[in-house]
Amino acid sequence: MRAIKDSVHDYIEADGVAAALLDTEPVQRLRHIKQLSTIRLVYPSANHTRFEHSLGVYHLADRALAHLDISGTRADTVRAAALLHDIGHGPYGHQTEGIIQRRLDRHHDDVAHLVSNGEPGAVLAAHGLDPDRVAALVAGHGKLGQLVAGELDVDRMDYLVRDAHHTGVPYGTIDHGRLLRALTFRDGDLVLAEGNVATAESVLVGRALMNATVYRHHVSRIAGAMLDRASARLLDTTDLDAETFARFTDADLLAVLRDCPATQDAARRIRNRDLYKRAVWTERDAVPDDVATADYRTVRDLESQVADAAGVPATAVVIDTPGAPSMPESSVRVTVNGDTRRLDEQSPLVDGMLASQRAQWRFGVYTPDDHVPAVAAAAERTLGLGPIDDPPA
Amino acid sequence: MRAIKDSVHDYIEADGVAAALLDTEPVQRLRHIKQLSTIRLVYPSANHTRFEHSLGVYHLADRALAHLDISGTRADTVRAAALLHDIGHGPYGHQTEGIIQRRLDRHHDDVAHLVSNGEPGAVLAAHGLDPDRVAALVAGHGKLGQLVAGELDVDRMDYLVRDAHHTGVPYGTIDHGRLLRALTFRDGDLVLAEGNVATAESVLVGRALMNATVYRHHVSRIAGAMLDRASARLLDTTDLDAETFARFTDADLLAVLRDCPATQDAARRIRNRDLYKRAVWTERDAVPDDVATADYRTVRDLESQVADAAGVPATAVVIDTPGAPSMPESSVRVTVNGDTRRLDEQSPLVDGMLASQRAQWRFGVYTPDDHVPAVAAAAERTLGLGPIDDPPA
Amino acid sequence: MRAIKDSVHDYIEADGVAAALLDTEPVQRLRHIKQLSTIRLVYPSANHTRFEHSLGVYHLADRALAHLDISGTRADTVRAAALLHDIGHGPYGHQTEGIIQRRLDRHHDDVAHLVSNGEPGAVLAAHGLDPDRVAALVAGHGKLGQLVAGELDVDRMDYLVRDAHHTGVPYGTIDHGRLLRALTFRDGDLVLAEGNVATAESVLVGRALMNATVYRHHVSRIAGAMLDRASARLLDTTDLDAETFARFTDADLLAVLRDCPATQDAARRIRNRDLYKRAVWTERDAVPDDVATADYRTVRDLESQVADAAGVPATAVVIDTPGAPSMPESSVRVTVNGDTRRLDEQSPLVDGMLASQRAQWRFGVYTPDDHVPAVAAAAERTLGLGPIDDPPA
Amino acid sequence: MRAIKDSVHDYIEADGVAAALLDTEPVQRLRHIKQLSTIRLVYPSANHTRFEHSLGVYHLADRALAHLDISGTRADTVRAAALLHDIGHGPYGHQTEGIIQRRLDRHHDDVAHLVSNGEPGAVLAAHGLDPDRVAALVAGHGKLGQLVAGELDVDRMDYLVRDAHHTGVPYGTIDHGRLLRALTFRDGDLVLAEGNVATAESVLVGRALMNATVYRHHVSRIAGAMLDRASARLLDTTDLDAETFARFTDADLLAVLRDCPATQDAARRIRNRDLYKRAVWTERDAVPDDVATADYRTVRDLESQVADAAGVPATAVVIDTPGAPSMPESSVRVTVNGDTRRLDEQSPLVDGMLASQRAQWRFGVYTPDDHVPAVAAAAERTLGLGPIDDPPA
Repeated sequence: MRAIKDSVHDYIEADGVAAALLDTEPVQRLRHIKQLSTIRLVYPSANHTRFEHSLGVYHLADRALAHLDISGTRADTVRAAALLHDIGHGPYGHQTEGIIQRRLDRHHDDVAHLVSNGEPGAVLAAHGLDPDRVAALVAGHGKLGQLVAGELDVDRMDYLVRDAHHTGVPYGTIDHGRLLRALTFRDGDLVLAEGNVATAESVLVGRALMNATVYRHHVSRIAGAMLDRASARLLDTTDLDAETFARFTDADLLAVLRDCPATQDAARRIRNRDLYKRAVWTERDAVPDDVATADYRTVRDLESQVADAAGVPATAVVIDTPGAPSMPESSVRVTVNGDTRRLDEQSPLVDGMLASQRAQWRFGVYTPDDHVPAVAAAAERTLGLGPIDDPPA
Repeated sequence: MRAIKDSVHDYIEADGVAAALLDTEPVQRLRHIKQLSTIRLVYPSANHTRFEHSLGVYHLADRALAHLDISGTRADTVRAAALLHDIGHGPYGHQTEGIIQRRLDRHHDDVAHLVSNGEPGAVLAAHGLDPDRVAALVAGHGKLGQLVAGELDVDRMDYLVRDAHHTGVPYGTIDHGRLLRALTFRDGDLVLAEGNVATAESVLVGRALMNATVYRHHVSRIAGAMLDRASARLLDTTDLDAETFARFTDADLLAVLRDCPATQDAARRIRNRDLYKRAVWTERDAVPDDVATADYRTVRDLESQVADAAGVPATAVVIDTPGAPSMPESSVRVTVNGDTRRLDEQSPLVDGMLASQRAQWRFGVYTPDDHVPAVAAAAERTLGLGPIDDPPA
Repeated sequence: MRAIKDSVHDYIEADGVAAALLDTEPVQRLRHIKQLSTIRLVYPSANHTRFEHSLGVYHLADRALAHLDISGTRADTVRAAALLHDIGHGPYGHQTEGIIQRRLDRHHDDVAHLVSNGEPGAVLAAHGLDPDRVAALVAGHGKLGQLVAGELDVDRMDYLVRDAHHTGVPYGTIDHGRLLRALTFRDGDLVLAEGNVATAESVLVGRALMNATVYRHHVSRIAGAMLDRASARLLDTTDLDAETFARFTDADLLAVLRDCPATQDAARRIRNRDLYKRAVWTERDAVPDDVATADYRTVRDLESQVADAAGVPATAVVIDTPGAPSMPESSVRVTVNGDTRRLDEQSPLVDGMLASQRAQWRFGVYTPDDHVPAVAAAAERTLGLGPIDDPPA
Repeated sequence: MRAIKDSVHDYIEADGVAAALLDTEPVQRLRHIKQLSTIRLVYPSANHTRFEHSLGVYHLADRALAHLDISGTRADTVRAAALLHDIGHGPYGHQTEGIIQRRLDRHHDDVAHLVSNGEPGAVLAAHGLDPDRVAALVAGHGKLGQLVAGELDVDRMDYLVRDAHHTGVPYGTIDHGRLLRALTFRDGDLVLAEGNVATAESVLVGRALMNATVYRHHVSRIAGAMLDRASARLLDTTDLDAETFARFTDADLLAVLRDCPATQDAARRIRNRDLYKRAVWTERDAVPDDVATADYRTVRDLESQVADAAGVPATAVVIDTPGAPSMPESSVRVTVNGDTRRLDEQSPLVDGMLASQRAQWRFGVYTPDDHVPAVAAAAERTLGLGPIDDPPA
């Protein structure tokens, strides 16, 4: 039995397949992928990694299994999936999701290729576990998949609390002890027991407030968009293959960007927090629908057009148009007066929260400091933006 | 300079009028009034008092004054008001607000009689402060009154965080450091600076979630209603005058209830947490409008009728119908794109939250354990309740 | 299964005999005995009670039992003892230990009379537990008694952490998770496993630093000594019997003191924190041996002599001479290189810590503010104190 | 005014020279140097960097300056020194101190060359500050140097609390609020005001307990020694110059080690936590004096001898003999009865703590897992070790 001290959950105990998986390369690699990627440029103490997050998810899964009275091979499969759920992430986590998806057509929760082979494959085999079952749970399939990757999953319970602990922003501090105790299965669905509407709401609002103040902070969005563009240039101008790219650590990527002439400026800017600034930062109303919902290819074309119009290099304009807000927690099932109801049926708060997320949606155009006036004017014209406010200083 | 260690704000420094007021009897009395009254019967570690809360409010006021660059007599008046804002509370705080209001026609934030005389009056005079100005601030009047008793007041900032710390329920842990830094005056109104819509929302949802899980927990509501009925019997059957009652500490009241034959059973039940149980616990739809919105006198009549119908003593039935949910934070003013807007104009979350509070509204009828079936049946008939669910076990 | 939210240990689960004992009067009474008695006059947020502490001790005992693989009736007996371990305390806990010992010749850990009868007796009988075994564990007897009341007991683990949480003084925050995991039995003794010398030292220094800054703070010592003298006058001048006194709550005692003419001044002073001040406060060297080690009877005589010499009433002088420092943690047994050693054999820190405690020993004489100069002079002469420093302002 | 959210100190406000220095390359580089270097291999959540630590030290310096009533250029110089105090660190902080000292004869607190030139030099000049004065403070010189780098410095106050927060080990959580308030100058020396012997002791014991459980954990010592040996091979077998080496970030060093054939195995082992194991781990008594106190050159020779004797490659043996324990806090000056005394004169705890540190001293020989028996036997013979225990499993 290994007891590992964690700053969030105190001691986390691991043995059997979990202890063995911990020592594998794909899990150790997570020590080198920061949980909050570029957010540490805003919240400097948020340097925690997907390694300790994965330990935390494993720990909460373990406690949930005990509460739900699940043991044996099924439980070990869940434990393995919990510990491995993030090994599919590329460098800088969510910030390279888009480019990996476009180049490899693969999502970070597709880990079948990683758990069937190599060290994890050997460990799973040695413990008599089926890698396909593990991968299915990571992808959220099946009854127990809800616990690993669903609206009430232990992933969310850990990251909200852990991100709050490390950023210092309190909103994510949900009551995971109560959530775990409220979990129950009903007709094959994971639901919250009677008396937990507010518990479910608290997860919803916790994530929404963390979105507004942490996860979607404009400084992190700028750095993330710069990273995406630089990564595209890197793959386009070198013989680096996307599979290798996808297995980089954060530092590997930054080093390769630094050593490539086409991306060295971006690398320096990200390393030293000397980022592009907001030339445009505006609400949904001011953005034509075709721009607001443009696909990646179109966005990149628009960037070139704006750059041309502004008389700046193409690399100096980054357009950032986030997707519509989603709120997976709204389909959490809660028990009310003996019935199972979806949270968005029961709680009027869900609609309010979705509307609030929409109100916080912002469209951004970023450029180096000294290009701001030119790019702002060019973007307004080229993109047909409505009357917009000056971006914040 | 006195530096007082506080478990929430670390060191709190007091000198001048604040240090002198600390030693007065009405402030020391607050050591004997628990901040969360009967809620400690649900959350056993919530034994904090209005004394340390008052210190905390004073401390946050002091920091807000520094941020707002207010000093001199105006600042001292705010500091005094912050420290004195709760001295008008009766025993068990909010749980005796109703009876004190009915007997003395006085609200707890009416402290003019307490600050003009006695030790506080002498201290204020010695420091050249006007007691009427202090009382006005406590009542929320005037520009600076908003800081002491308004939608953005430091009272709320302290109690949410403090109650979270002592109950262990995390939802109240708002970011008061950010709130304080965001405060600014605009056209005489206290508003939040640009970029703080989510900050304002966080106070709103923090309080709403604390309402659902802490402040309106049914066990505390039962104990509070029992305390109200026992206090009424005490004042009706003894020669105790209401003014004396209003200045009791928690323990004073419990002792007097214990020594009065008409209330000794209630005193024992509250002391030993052997409370009435829920005979009825139902949503708004199941309650006729005239019952749901009945005034106190009517409620007490209905209690007698239900008791008669159930064949139990009149003291064995308590009807608890809470008022409509209010959400003062919804009128918080925030700056958005340079304009001042009310939060409920800007954030669709406010409506969602209000609706959610309404969905959580419950009507209760309480009685000793062994009368539950009889009282439930009698209440349903007598009050004309719609089909209702069995109360939770 | 009841899950009770605690601000220190999060959820505490109780069922069986523990849940039943929780509802008994002697355990509920602990809601009305503050854990830190008069210390809240120094640390205003330290209002926690022996009730939640008892829950915490039960919780840690439960975890230790799981770790030590002890179950069945033996485990239930330990759980019961953990929950009941403090029911023998009088009002204001340790502050009335002396007077109860002198009048009733009974220590607070003698609970045989309380667990054999009444509600606890009935609960224990209903669950097939032997009250004498429970009382023996509370007194620290037998192998498992070490866990409840020994050098490595769960009582200490809870109170250090809880007192730190509520005072805000961090020193008591030991790593109880590590301590619990390190517990093991060896030749019938509870010892710490290999690699835990620093763990044992941390408990020792945690308590020593809490002694210096919290438990033996002079303001609390003054209030405690005043309470002792007032209690003696109360029992001497009224027909109140000591058994009734011993079962008071904190508030019961304060009310009776207030209503007795001989003690009403003391009651007012303690309630409103208007305490005696230090006329003398000096190190061990300045105090003659016979004074420093005088028994209670002699101390009281000396008080009268000093009062006479100073020309003040006998009640206006309180002499406070603490016992020699003890350090039970020094006999904790730790495993080093496979051997079991006492901590004071292994760690040179123990001697240093004991010497440090002796260096912090202070002799005090307390009196109302305006008698300070007269009493200081009289005490110096009458008691033959060496040259002493002015007491701190 | 920038307000930066920190997980330890909440908001940290910076403007003027501090805000300008924050954006310089040498300070931004600290985002890429972990505060606890290889300790994160033991405590996985300890990924905080010297960047946020430097912010914290600046913040505490700022508060200390306010308390000590120091302002103007002197204060700005202290603020600058606080923010810059760690820019002299090489990759992996203390783990490369030895090799940088040997190759460049420069200690990490020698920052004159870094603050006189480049971006920091320009910023200091623009704010009218003397870089030599800043460098002197970083080196601990002068009256105010005591605050930046002395026994009572703000560096220590921050790292103890921060390391506790991120490891989850509570021992470092000192009461920095009290320490700051107790600081005062007396005859040019920084001393603690009356009544703070226990405060000073708490820093001493906090660091000693963190030493035992965190800073000197054997896993971190193993990784650190491996890093030192690999760095030496790197500099010896490539044309990398030591100045470049000294300015690497953690990730730079790991990447270069990975790409150099002579060090790639070490790099892989450190990255994936597949470390050497303890072949020898023994107390001081078992180690001949000349071995225990051998200088670096001798240690490296002994490694070769042991490797030869064991029949393993020279790179497979690492000998780790830590220096004698030091305890700079023992010369902290405290005020007792009006006199200034050194803590080790006043507190018998200091000697106990020093002896305890000596008792925890361990000599280690490390080697890959499968060489452990051969290397253990060879080391015992070659080094003339006394009878030693089996190393822990």
